[in-house]
Amino acid sequence: MKLITPDFHVDGDQAIRWQDDALYLLDQRLLPAKIRYVVCKSSADVAEAIQLMVVRGAPAIGITAAYGAVLAARECNDTTGLEKMLQHLASSRPTAVNLIWAINRVRGIAGEYEYAELEVRFLDLAQEIHRQDIADNQAMGQLGATLIESGSSVLTHCNAGALATGGYGTALGVIRAGWQLQHINKVFADETRPWLQGTRLTAWELARDNIPVQVLVDGAAAALMAGGNVQWVIVGSDRIAANGDVANKIGTYSLAVAARYHGVKFMVVAPTSTIDMASASGEQIPIEHRSGTELFSEPAGEGVDAWNPVFDVTPAKLVDVLVTEKGVVHAPDTDKLEKLMA
Amino acid sequence: MKLITPDFHVDGDQAIRWQDDALYLLDQRLLPAKIRYVVCKSSADVAEAIQLMVVRGAPAIGITAAYGAVLAARECNDTTGLEKMLQHLASSRPTAVNLIWAINRVRGIAGEYEYAELEVRFLDLAQEIHRQDIADNQAMGQLGATLIESGSSVLTHCNAGALATGGYGTALGVIRAGWQLQHINKVFADETRPWLQGTRLTAWELARDNIPVQVLVDGAAAALMAGGNVQWVIVGSDRIAANGDVANKIGTYSLAVAARYHGVKFMVVAPTSTIDMASASGEQIPIEHRSGTELFSEPAGEGVDAWNPVFDVTPAKLVDVLVTEKGVVHAPDTDKLEKLMA
Repeated sequence: MKLITPDFHVDGDQAIRWQDDALYLLDQRLLPAKIRYVVCKSSADVAEAIQLMVVRGAPAIGITAAYGAVLAARECNDTTGLEKMLQHLASSRPTAVNLIWAINRVRGIAGEYEYAELEVRFLDLAQEIHRQDIADNQAMGQLGATLIESGSSVLTHCNAGALATGGYGTALGVIRAGWQLQHINKVFADETRPWLQGTRLTAWELARDNIPVQVLVDGAAAALMAGGNVQWVIVGSDRIAANGDVANKIGTYSLAVAARYHGVKFMVVAPTSTIDMASASGEQIPIEHRSGTELFSEPAGEGVDAWNPVFDVTPAKLVDVLVTEKGVVHAPDTDKLEKLMA
Repeated sequence: MKLITPDFHVDGDQAIRWQDDALYLLDQRLLPAKIRYVVCKSSADVAEAIQLMVVRGAPAIGITAAYGAVLAARECNDTTGLEKMLQHLASSRPTAVNLIWAINRVRGIAGEYEYAELEVRFLDLAQEIHRQDIADNQAMGQLGATLIESGSSVLTHCNAGALATGGYGTALGVIRAGWQLQHINKVFADETRPWLQGTRLTAWELARDNIPVQVLVDGAAAALMAGGNVQWVIVGSDRIAANGDVANKIGTYSLAVAARYHGVKFMVVAPTSTIDMASASGEQIPIEHRSGTELFSEPAGEGVDAWNPVFDVTPAKLVDVLVTEKGVVHAPDTDKLEKLMA
């Protein structure tokens, strides 16, 4: 992986860029202080970039992995070697199911062509997945925004924006569309510890679009709701189980509990590539735990460590509405998701 | 204010130290990386140290202000000048009522003596308040610990420990006593953004006492409860209204909502000097808001600011038990607190 200063114009939808036969990933660990790209020239580079959170957000990870498959096809000589690299890509992070979904789409076409053709075919597929993700986000943005009453304030968590997707965003797609329609007039963003995606990414994205945003510590969200200051919580997801349970960034579940307590509506926005019908409920979703050192800017004192799950599971019963590109599901459950995915 | 490296042994109960006719305050902004004392030689120094959070925690602020009155008596020539300095001390932070309580105790004896005697009398009073606070904490520790079932794990927020008091701690006093009695076998500490008192102070204190502690991001607390990993939430308070509403560090209310949702018990530990019968309910408690820059390690992007309340209010109905030095109050309300304070 090489770090470069871009010589092209950077927009919010430029988190993932295929250029000069390589994959350019906006290094989201450095935003907003520095705009730098990691250049991936091998599928191992791509897997490492996903693992290190250069790129993050379930749909963005899926798209990135699809481009990673293009590099894998170039590096290998046969499908056996290729499959090994695809497995490595698929295991780079455990929770976001879009990663496995994208790799399975790659696998689905691998058998249809001569090996020599695969690099070109995979690139077509990756670019198609990328384009479709942006189109899906725009569709979800409209669907979600129409559910929000005029003049609402909303709270979001982590970053489910252009940076977390092919572009436009899932939760932030709804917020962008809601702002355009004047249904939303104010956004609160949880700072989202330990990586501060809310402060560094969501606030940055929204401010660039001139959408009013205030950051708060994650612990302040319940007090914000108690003051009557928000009408909707709007979040993305890393994996949704067949029964509608939602895995998302740690802290999401706390918001869902507080939202229900205060009568604030809770909306999840995710493409159907995030729905995993093979996981019957949230209990089947693997939850990544990362090093406790992520919580400590200085080494912790002797005898101190951290409990650092990256995601939590919000049970379906706390989800008022799930917005997908195929339509809106109120009070999601297994029956409704089976119909949606049929 | 002068910063010094101490030439005396520093224990957990050495946050506030009167020595050589000056007030030495352990600089809690630098812990645990550096052990440094701020030396206050005037009451203005003391007010500034409180405002800048060199010392924090409601009981500790009260004790500090009482020592500040000693310096004020020395600096002035008459009660008019003195009262001005006492007012300045009393307004150095708005929420912790122990500050006003301590200043009112000082005022209460100011009329009883010749002005020339006041410095000595105030020092006696400050040392008495300091000693009594430690004794009260030890009494509360025993009272609270007996309520906790053997083998429990508990979650605490911010720092209500030796560093926040004269010594031993309120919430951490109960935890220390519960650990001794083997009622508590594990402590989880919210990191407590934005100042990270949980990581820097609570984990440091507990690790020094060899009490097992794990730090988590504030947003993870609800997921921790959902996993059945804690039986009690135990916190301190900055001010308790006459009806039992509890002002405490931002994030406490979120814990109380989540605790009730999961059937986890919620305990508040505070001396009666924290109870403000003049505030009928939490609505009368002034909530300090601090600069949004406290949330940003680098300057925020253009158009980004923060909502940064320092405290929130947990309504009495979410408090299972209030532990004071005068006794335990289950499901606190106005009647019960009036009896307690009579």
